[in-house]
Amino acid sequence: MFDKEYDVIVVGGGHAGAEATAAAANMGSKTLLITMNLQTIGQMSCNPAMGGIAKGQIVREIDALGGYSGIVTDKSAIQFKMLNKSKGPAMWSPRAQNDRMRFAEEWRLALENTPNADFYQEMVSGLLVEGDKVVGVRTSLGIDVRAKAVVLTNGTFLNGLIHIGEKQFGGGRAGEKAATGITEQLVDFGFESGRMKTGTPPRVDGRSLDYSKMILQPGDNNPEKFSYLETPKLKEQRDCHMTHTSQLVHDLLREGFDRSPMFNGRIKSIGPRYCPSIEDKINRFADKSSHQIFVEPEGWHTVEVYVNGFSTSLPEDVQYKALKSVVGFENVKFFRPGYAIEYDYFPPTQLKHTLETKLVNNLYFAGQINGTTGYEEAASQGLMAGINAHLKINEKEPFMLKRDEAYIGVLIDDLITKGTEEPYRMFTSRAEYRTLLRQDNADLRLTPKGYELGLAKEERLRRMEEKEKNSDKFVAFFKNTSFTPEEINPILEEVSSSPVKQSDKMFKVFSRPNVTMDHMLRLDAVSNFVAEHNLDTEVLEQAEVQVKYSGYIAKEKNNADKLLRLENIKIPEDFDYRKLKSLSYEAREKLEAIRPVTISQASRISGVSPSDISVLLVFLGR
Amino acid sequence: MFDKEYDVIVVGGGHAGAEATAAAANMGSKTLLITMNLQTIGQMSCNPAMGGIAKGQIVREIDALGGYSGIVTDKSAIQFKMLNKSKGPAMWSPRAQNDRMRFAEEWRLALENTPNADFYQEMVSGLLVEGDKVVGVRTSLGIDVRAKAVVLTNGTFLNGLIHIGEKQFGGGRAGEKAATGITEQLVDFGFESGRMKTGTPPRVDGRSLDYSKMILQPGDNNPEKFSYLETPKLKEQRDCHMTHTSQLVHDLLREGFDRSPMFNGRIKSIGPRYCPSIEDKINRFADKSSHQIFVEPEGWHTVEVYVNGFSTSLPEDVQYKALKSVVGFENVKFFRPGYAIEYDYFPPTQLKHTLETKLVNNLYFAGQINGTTGYEEAASQGLMAGINAHLKINEKEPFMLKRDEAYIGVLIDDLITKGTEEPYRMFTSRAEYRTLLRQDNADLRLTPKGYELGLAKEERLRRMEEKEKNSDKFVAFFKNTSFTPEEINPILEEVSSSPVKQSDKMFKVFSRPNVTMDHMLRLDAVSNFVAEHNLDTEVLEQAEVQVKYSGYIAKEKNNADKLLRLENIKIPEDFDYRKLKSLSYEAREKLEAIRPVTISQASRISGVSPSDISVLLVFLGR
Ligand SMILES: Cc1cc2nc3c(=O)[nH]c(=O)nc-3n(C[C@H](O)[C@H](O)[C@H](O)COP(=O)(O)OP(=O)(O)OC[C@H]3O[C@@H](n4cnc5c(N)ncnc54)[C@H](O)[C@@H]3O)c2cc1C
Ligand SMILES: Cc1cc2nc3c(=O)[nH]c(=O)nc-3n(C[C@H](O)[C@H](O)[C@H](O)COP(=O)(O)OP(=O)(O)OC[C@H]3O[C@@H](n4cnc5c(N)ncnc54)[C@H](O)[C@@H]3O)c2cc1C
Repeated sequence: MFDKEYDVIVVGGGHAGAEATAAAANMGSKTLLITMNLQTIGQMSCNPAMGGIAKGQIVREIDALGGYSGIVTDKSAIQFKMLNKSKGPAMWSPRAQNDRMRFAEEWRLALENTPNADFYQEMVSGLLVEGDKVVGVRTSLGIDVRAKAVVLTNGTFLNGLIHIGEKQFGGGRAGEKAATGITEQLVDFGFESGRMKTGTPPRVDGRSLDYSKMILQPGDNNPEKFSYLETPKLKEQRDCHMTHTSQLVHDLLREGFDRSPMFNGRIKSIGPRYCPSIEDKINRFADKSSHQIFVEPEGWHTVEVYVNGFSTSLPEDVQYKALKSVVGFENVKFFRPGYAIEYDYFPPTQLKHTLETKLVNNLYFAGQINGTTGYEEAASQGLMAGINAHLKINEKEPFMLKRDEAYIGVLIDDLITKGTEEPYRMFTSRAEYRTLLRQDNADLRLTPKGYELGLAKEERLRRMEEKEKNSDKFVAFFKNTSFTPEEINPILEEVSSSPVKQSDKMFKVFSRPNVTMDHMLRLDAVSNFVAEHNLDTEVLEQAEVQVKYSGYIAKEKNNADKLLRLENIKIPEDFDYRKLKSLSYEAREKLEAIRPVTISQASRISGVSPSDISVLLVFLGR
Repeated sequence: MFDKEYDVIVVGGGHAGAEATAAAANMGSKTLLITMNLQTIGQMSCNPAMGGIAKGQIVREIDALGGYSGIVTDKSAIQFKMLNKSKGPAMWSPRAQNDRMRFAEEWRLALENTPNADFYQEMVSGLLVEGDKVVGVRTSLGIDVRAKAVVLTNGTFLNGLIHIGEKQFGGGRAGEKAATGITEQLVDFGFESGRMKTGTPPRVDGRSLDYSKMILQPGDNNPEKFSYLETPKLKEQRDCHMTHTSQLVHDLLREGFDRSPMFNGRIKSIGPRYCPSIEDKINRFADKSSHQIFVEPEGWHTVEVYVNGFSTSLPEDVQYKALKSVVGFENVKFFRPGYAIEYDYFPPTQLKHTLETKLVNNLYFAGQINGTTGYEEAASQGLMAGINAHLKINEKEPFMLKRDEAYIGVLIDDLITKGTEEPYRMFTSRAEYRTLLRQDNADLRLTPKGYELGLAKEERLRRMEEKEKNSDKFVAFFKNTSFTPEEINPILEEVSSSPVKQSDKMFKVFSRPNVTMDHMLRLDAVSNFVAEHNLDTEVLEQAEVQVKYSGYIAKEKNNADKLLRLENIKIPEDFDYRKLKSLSYEAREKLEAIRPVTISQASRISGVSPSDISVLLVFLGR
C-alpha cells in the first residue's frame, strides 16, 4: 500500500497534528498524516474559539514562524476581540470566535494545498521500532508504513472514556471512537503514562434562548486579526451574549452531586484547574452565588450554541434542570449534554526540548498527549515537533525557543522541566519576560527564525522587515523631533498631566502615562510623518509600545541576558549526577530523571535549590 | 431532559431521516431528530452525487411534493448532467455531482431553518412500546423521549460490520460507530430481520492522478437543476474524468480473491446487483476485459477524489496494486481503502403502504433499513414516512402515491408487495408507466398533492400552475396554428423528412421524428408567440414533450386508467384468505402475509396468478 518510506509520519489530525504536518511538509519532508477520520481534521473538540489571554500570543507566534493556525482562524472567524486592552500591551491578547465547520474545512484545505503532505484515514495501533529508533507505524488494518520520524498527536483519544453522570462509554470525543494499542505498547517500551480528564458543556439550540434577557457581547469595533499575512479582516461579526448562574442553579446542580463521576470517585484523574466544570466551581467557591456564562454561536448560520462556562459531567437530567434556571435559558433545548472525558497522557518530562522522546529516537510527542490542554498549546507543540522531526532526519541542529523568545519556549520548557500534574494551559504569569513576549511583536521576534528554517516564506520576512524598519524610523522620529509647548499643552491638560514650559523631544512627553498615539497624531509633524511614510496601524501600534514601554522592555531584556549566561552553560548529556554527593537527594533524583541541558534549565526544576546550582557550577568549573 | 411529548421522533439523520424530519415538521408536527452525530446530517456515505437514471426523477418528485433533497442538491452541486438526452423524454434523468461537505452542511442548515424541528445527538438503543403502539424511544444514556409516532431511518448502522480483506470491525460507516439494540428489540416484538451488504471504493488524492491520460467528462453546456423553485443554477462546473480497468488490473485483483470476504464466505449477505463491486464484475462478467471507471471530485476545492466503479472489499494491498495499474492512476495515493459493510434490514413486506409497520402501530421505517440502496430511494421513503406519521397522529387519511403517479409510488409498492431479496434500487424499467413519470412533469403530477398536504408552499403551486397554463397554451397554439410549406420544407429537408405540399397545423409536422422545438422556433409565428408570452425553457420543454409524445402518453394514461379500476376494488383489512380454498397454496400464503389493500396490489404479488385474482374478484362480488 505504501511502497515508499516517508520522511515524517504524523499520527492524528487535531491541532497539533495539523501544524506538525504543515511544518514538516513545508520544510521539505515527505509527510504522511494518518488520522482516524479525514473529515475531522482541525476539529475543535470544545469551544469554537481561538486565542485569549496568553493563548492569543501563542497563535501569533505560530503564525510568525510560518504555521497555519492564525491563517485558519482569520479565515473562519465570526467575531474578534483584543482582550485586556485597558492593561499594558504585554497583556493584550487577541481572541476570535470561529465557525466550527469552516475552521475544520479551512484546515483541511490548507493541508491539501501543502505540497509534500499526504493523507491517510485509519487508526494507528502501534509503532514500528527497531533498536532504540522508531521506523514507522502500524495501522489497525495491519498496514505498515515506514518513516524516518514519527510525531504522535493523539489528543484525548488514547483509551478515551466518556462520562455523563453514572454512565460511561469509550470514545475519543462525543460520537467518535477511542484509539487503542499505542499506550500499551509505549508502556512496554518503558514509558510512564498517566490519566487526565477534561470536560465540555452542553450544546443547545439558539432558537430556544431568550437573548433579550442577556448582556450583549459584541466584537471589537475595529476588529484586528491573527496572521501577519494578508488574511481577510472581519467586515461583519456575530454577537455573543453573557448571562450567569444563580443560587437556584447551584442548588439544582448540587442535587446531582451524588451521581457525579467527579464526586463519587469514578473519575480519579485530574482535570484542568483553570477550565473547571460548573460543579467544580460551585464546590470550590461555595461562597460565590453566581458564575458567568458566555453564550457563543457555533458559526455564521447554524443555530447551535456553545454554553461557555457550563462544562459538566453531571447526569443529563441534572444538567437540563439546572440550565433551565439560568436567565435566558428558561426554554432551552439541548442538542447534546455536556460530558467529561478521561484519556491517557505521557508525563512530558520524558521528552527533550525538541519534543523528541528520550527513550525512543526520532519519536516525537505533541499536544494533549503531553498533558496540556487547549488548541493553541497543542498547535504550537505540533509546529515545534514537526520542525524538529524534519531537522533531525536531515541531521541539522535542533530548533528550540528560549523563555525570553516566545511563549512557545516557556510552554515547552515548563513541560519538560517541571512536568505537569494537571492539564497544563498557558498564562501570561508563566512567562518571566512577558513584556518581551507580546502579541504585537511575535513577527519581529520569530519570523527571521522561521525564515531561516525555511518555514516562513520570503513574503513574510519582507512584511516583517518593512514593519521593523518603519517602526524604528517612527521611534527615531519621536526621539529626534521636538514639540512646542503650545501644541502639546492642550493635550496634556486633557489627560490631567502637568503642562510643559518649554520645547522638548516628543519621545519624552509621549512616554507619559495616558498620552497615546491618538493624541500624538494630533500634532501636525506626527500626522505628516505618518502620511508621508504611509505607516499602517501595525506600525503605529508597534512604535507606541516601543516608546511607552521602553523602560520595562529594556529592564526585561537585561534580566534575560543575565539568564542567558546560565543558559549558555551546557551540562554534558551523559553527566553523572550520582557522583555529586553534595547535591541534595531530591535534586539528584530530579536531575537524573529530567537531565537538563543547561544550568538555567536545571535551576527551574522544582526541588533543585540555588545551592544545588552552585554545586553544579563549581563542578563544571565556573 | 425532554419534558414534553413530541409528535414525531425521527431516528437517524441520513437522507431518509432528514426528509422525514422536514416533512413532519413542515406539516406542523413537533418533531425531534435524534442522530448519532449532528455533524453528519445528510452525509453522503458513498458517491458524492445525486440523481441519475430513475433516481433523478425521484429527486424531482421529492422536490415537487415539498421535500428538500432537490434544493440541497442544487445548492451544493459542482456539476450537472441530463443523462439519456438522446433517448425519449421518459428516459431523461438529471444527475448532479456534489460537494460532499457542502451537501451535508446545506441539509443541516435547511433543517435548522425548519420551525418545529428539534435536534438531539445520541444513539437510540430501543423503542418505548405500550400495547401494540410505539410511544417513544430510549437513548443509550437511558433517556426516554415520548412521541406519538416514531420513524426509524437507521441506514447501514444496525449492527454494521465493516470488511476489508480478511479484517472486519464494527462500524456504521468508515470511522463511525455501529448502532446496537434496536434490531434485537424488534426481533423480540416479532419482526423478521435480515442482513444485506454494500460497498464503497477507495478515496484517493487527486494530486496523484494523471488526468491527461483520461477522458474528460464535463458537465452540460447549459446545466439545468433539480428544484422547481428558484435555486441557483451552476455558472461554473468541475470536470469529471473517465478511465478503465484492463486485463492486468483484473489479474491483479484476482490474486486477492482467496482473501476476499465476498468469495471466501465471510460475507453471506447479498449486495446490490446493480452497484456491484469490481471483484463481482470481474467474476460475473469474466469475458469483459475492461470496465469503466469514473473519476469524480469530492467538492469544489478538495483534492479528494471518488473512484466510481471500483467499489471493493479486497485486501487493501490488492486494491492498491490493482488501482495503480489503471490508466492515469500509476502514482495513486490512497486516502482510504474501499470496504464492504454488512448491516441489518427488515424485509419491507412487514410494512403498510404508508411505511407504517404492520406489527407496531405508529412506528414507521424508511430508507436503507427497508432493504433499499441509494440516497434518493432513502430520501423519498423518509418523505413519505414523515408525511404519513403526521397524518396518522392527526387522524387524517393516509397519503399514498400510485404506480402511475410517481416513481415513489412504484418504489413503495414494489417494496411492500414484492419485498426484496437484494438491495433494491430504482430503474425506469420498474415503472409500467414511465412515459407518464417524467422528470419534466413531476411538479405537474405532484405539486397539487403536496400543496393539499400543506407541505408544498403557495409559491410552489403558483409556479407549477403558471407552467401548466403556459404549456397548455403553447400546445394549443401548435394545434391551432398553420405553417406554410415554404417555411417548413427547408427544415424537413434538413432532417431528411419528406416535404409537404400544402399548409397544415403545426402540431402535425412537429410530431414528426427529428423535428425539435429548436426547429419550430425558426418559424416566425412560434418565436413571436414565445416572446409575446415570455415562455421559459421549462415551458418549451414541457410543450415539446406533450406534442411529440402525445400518442404514447395517451396510451399509457389509458392503460393506467384500466388498472385504476382494479385499484379501486379494495380488499377488507381482515379478509380471511384461508376460507378461499380455490386459491393456490402459494397465493394464499403470500396474500395472508402481505395483506394487499386492493386487487391491483394483489395482482402484483409474485406467486399470485391471474386465476387467483379471478377467484378473489368473484368472491368480492365483481
Ligand atoms: C470533551 C473535551 C473537552 C475539552 N475541554 C477543553 C477546555 O475546556 N479547555 C481547553 O483549553 N481545551 C479543552 N479541550 C482540549 C482541546 O480540545 C485539546 O487540547 C486539543 O484539541 C488538543 O489538540 P490535539 O491536537 O493534541 O488533539 P485532538 O484535537 O484531540 O486531536 C487528536 C486527533 O488524533 C486523532 N487520533 C487519535 N488517535 C489516533 C490514532 N491512534 N490513529 C489515528 N488518529 C488518531 C484523532 O482522530 C484526532 O483527529 C477539550 C477536549 C475535549 C475532547
Ligand atoms: C459503505 C457504503 C457503500 C454504499 N454504496 C452505495 C452504492 O454503491 N450505491 C448506492 O446507491 N448506495 C450506496 N450506499 C447506500 C447509501 O449510502 C444509502 O442508501 C443511504 O445513505 C441510505 O440513507 P438512510 O437515510 O437510509 O441511511 P444513512 O444514510 O445510512 O443514515 C443513517 C443515519 O442514522 C443514524 N443512526 C443510525 N442508527 C442510529 C441510532 N440507533 N440512533 C441514532 N442515530 C442513528 C446514523 O448516524 C446516520 O446519520 C452505500 C452506503 C455505505 C455505508
